[in-house]
Amino acid sequence: MKHFPKATAALARKLGRARVATSDTARFRASFDGSKLSFLPDAVVFPRKGDDISATLILANKHRVPVTVRGAGSSLTGSGSPVRGGWVLNLSKWNRIRIDPEAGLARVQAGAVIADIQAAAEAAGWFYPPDPASKKYCTIGGNISCNAGGMHGGRYGVTRDFVLALRGYLPTGEYVEWGTPTKKFSAGFNLRDLWIGAEGMLGVVTEAVLKLIPKPAARWTLLTAFSDEVAAFRAIRTLFARRVQPAICEFLDRHSVQCAEAKTGKTVFEGQAGKPLILIELAGSENELADTKTTVLAWAAANAQAFREARDRDEAAELWTVRRKCSGAMFALGDSKLNEDIVVPLANYEKFAVFLDKLRKKSRLPIPTFGHLADGNLHVNIMYHRENRDEYLRAEKAVGELMKGVVALGGAISGEHGIGLAKTPFLRLQHSPAQIKAMRAIKDALDPNGILNPGKMFTLFKVWEHPRLKIDLPWDHK
Amino acid sequence: MKHFPKATAALARKLGRARVATSDTARFRASFDGSKLSFLPDAVVFPRKGDDISATLILANKHRVPVTVRGAGSSLTGSGSPVRGGWVLNLSKWNRIRIDPEAGLARVQAGAVIADIQAAAEAAGWFYPPDPASKKYCTIGGNISCNAGGMHGGRYGVTRDFVLALRGYLPTGEYVEWGTPTKKFSAGFNLRDLWIGAEGMLGVVTEAVLKLIPKPAARWTLLTAFSDEVAAFRAIRTLFARRVQPAICEFLDRHSVQCAEAKTGKTVFEGQAGKPLILIELAGSENELADTKTTVLAWAAANAQAFREARDRDEAAELWTVRRKCSGAMFALGDSKLNEDIVVPLANYEKFAVFLDKLRKKSRLPIPTFGHLADGNLHVNIMYHRENRDEYLRAEKAVGELMKGVVALGGAISGEHGIGLAKTPFLRLQHSPAQIKAMRAIKDALDPNGILNPGKMFTLFKVWEHPRLKIDLPWDHK
Repeated sequence: MKHFPKATAALARKLGRARVATSDTARFRASFDGSKLSFLPDAVVFPRKGDDISATLILANKHRVPVTVRGAGSSLTGSGSPVRGGWVLNLSKWNRIRIDPEAGLARVQAGAVIADIQAAAEAAGWFYPPDPASKKYCTIGGNISCNAGGMHGGRYGVTRDFVLALRGYLPTGEYVEWGTPTKKFSAGFNLRDLWIGAEGMLGVVTEAVLKLIPKPAARWTLLTAFSDEVAAFRAIRTLFARRVQPAICEFLDRHSVQCAEAKTGKTVFEGQAGKPLILIELAGSENELADTKTTVLAWAAANAQAFREARDRDEAAELWTVRRKCSGAMFALGDSKLNEDIVVPLANYEKFAVFLDKLRKKSRLPIPTFGHLADGNLHVNIMYHRENRDEYLRAEKAVGELMKGVVALGGAISGEHGIGLAKTPFLRLQHSPAQIKAMRAIKDALDPNGILNPGKMFTLFKVWEHPRLKIDLPWDHK
Repeated sequence: MKHFPKATAALARKLGRARVATSDTARFRASFDGSKLSFLPDAVVFPRKGDDISATLILANKHRVPVTVRGAGSSLTGSGSPVRGGWVLNLSKWNRIRIDPEAGLARVQAGAVIADIQAAAEAAGWFYPPDPASKKYCTIGGNISCNAGGMHGGRYGVTRDFVLALRGYLPTGEYVEWGTPTKKFSAGFNLRDLWIGAEGMLGVVTEAVLKLIPKPAARWTLLTAFSDEVAAFRAIRTLFARRVQPAICEFLDRHSVQCAEAKTGKTVFEGQAGKPLILIELAGSENELADTKTTVLAWAAANAQAFREARDRDEAAELWTVRRKCSGAMFALGDSKLNEDIVVPLANYEKFAVFLDKLRKKSRLPIPTFGHLADGNLHVNIMYHRENRDEYLRAEKAVGELMKGVVALGGAISGEHGIGLAKTPFLRLQHSPAQIKAMRAIKDALDPNGILNPGKMFTLFKVWEHPRLKIDLPWDHK
């Protein structure tokens, strides 16, 4: 890996030594993200003001120093790992949140944590729906860069659907503003949305204006059990065909349920031990829920093997426990997990269930799967033991098979995590050479020296050749 | 203007003579859009299949022939006028619409008319909210290219918020697909959204997958009158602060109301002749409406000078008549109109009302204004007589003042029409040199020969030096 001592010294002179950390600890902390793929940068930059960011980028261009922008570092794909070294630009302190309660907007800095944005919005009677599992840690800057989703995506949309305006810097250092704090904007090319999901390769996001929606006054939760995954998928399609759009519609396959039950020692749904579950939550006004509840209960009676309504929020919280615990409980099946956030179109849900069963047999690995049924975004968790090289290679191979299968079913290789390093081997399954050529042309046009987050997305990264750190991170849900 | 007889002959040989129209009538029809700025192309291409589009673009690149893609041609900005001649690619026959009633999706070709998409969706119990005033004529391809909005933007969003996937061609002729028919997609740069609002300069859209929402079961309409515009704006802000999100919230200033009343000979709201109006429509289930109605009626009692509830859909239709008629009724004030679709942030509504009054005085022109209060997208209609050169120049000058005022208030120079030719003088008010440099870099990267819709957006077009056709178009609402 190339080092940049002269450029780093120049940067420290320009920004002040306190803004440019070069200690081993600081560099190590910034060397990896949730993927646990570690590459030491030369320095970590903590900008105080916008000019610091601009100056960093200008120097980086001059000396061709890679710059990787970082918030919490909770990306699961390596999009936050500085694979080419250089500088990590840490924006986690840029975390101001201001709610405009009249217009229903949140003006946030890139480092604002999603749970904090949600809490601030809810305190004012508003609601910010995107909620990645890591929401207590992950930042809006990262959510924008990966177009993060979460459990509310089907009904309310993903990060992209809530961004009205972005502020930040071009890779070449110029300050730019995309969009206005308004719900309509049709003036000039849409670089706001081009930045969303660009994984920090096309610009540095420093601030966003987010659209909020009124906080639903009431919620209602129903747990349903099915004989098997195909039956569950077939059933849910009939619910959607009735134009019911639950706020949340979470699926747990039998493997996930079994993990949770083994861990807690309790049956989730009495009489339905080890059965796949769908957890449905409706949200809206009391009156609004009244209509939909009736439809959902009739659907459950006709389709589910068993169903149980939460009588109050405490009981609902209890039902949600299993959904939250299943992710951690899976580590009984292996000490490591490849969490693949694929998306399948509704019409092919059942085919996908059949495909997954074949993949389990072929790979001889446990693959508990759960996820967001309202948008087809399923988390396929391929479990292995990291000390077992054979298992690890089978796991990586299974990821490849999975991605092929998903694309063949008309789906997406990532619904909310992005490509980063880990999914670079599969980008060409999703995108044709012409599509990739167009993306790379845009990258070259905006970042002629290729300094922003280089080595990601387009460059094949053989993830299986790189050891992952043996470290537990706060969002690992163990 | 440059002509391309050799390239056109080659194109006719390649596609067949029947696909390449060169008659005066065909060329004239394709020479202008709703802006009535006319520039004769050399030929109009009616592709039969995707390969025809690809072949056209490849030949165009080879011979540097400008290509302007066209649907209905209802753009108001000149974005559909072939200002540099060349070829017009007419996709209006590509109008297939398929509804997926289970997944709540519409798969449409670029030439599908918005009203037809809405009708097909509603027949299946679904709803496609974006509804430009020209919806009976305008096509989804054009709506995507201009990120069209309409009356439902505040609550439901604009075209961008409903596009899941796009299919089409790069300027260099390669077929591409952006996104999958799923609500989550986070794999690679977001060219789908970059194409949305790009006014046909970055690619040719041939097909889209649109997200639908369940059709609201019920609607409820309330007409409210206010003493003046400032009072109306102040009042509506208090409604939004209560987190009420009407499906539609249309504003008519006193000038618009007076036009409608003069034309129909009837007072819109008895006892409130010539007063500014806000027309509110709620949508949802009967139960859902029950909650919100109470809030809105209490708000009206406390804030409006007068209000009237529609007792049924017939009465609601009657209330809507005035909103629909005001656009045409304005032609009593001048035979021509510059309809500017600016956007103002909620916090500055009152300031904008004051600004507009000053602009009326300064320009000595009638400027009736109406529009979409839930998203701040107001249609400022500067009326003049086309034979009166002095009036016309004052009208064009007033547009410039308006745009400066809007940007100073933190708003957008276009909310749903785009830039085209007519707004090129103002792009630099909205965007900094760095922002425009980034946009142009993207244009050059994707369209190195600059063949797709050249002369738009970035090139200053002195609209006041170009005569407009004296012609009535179906969407003129006269």
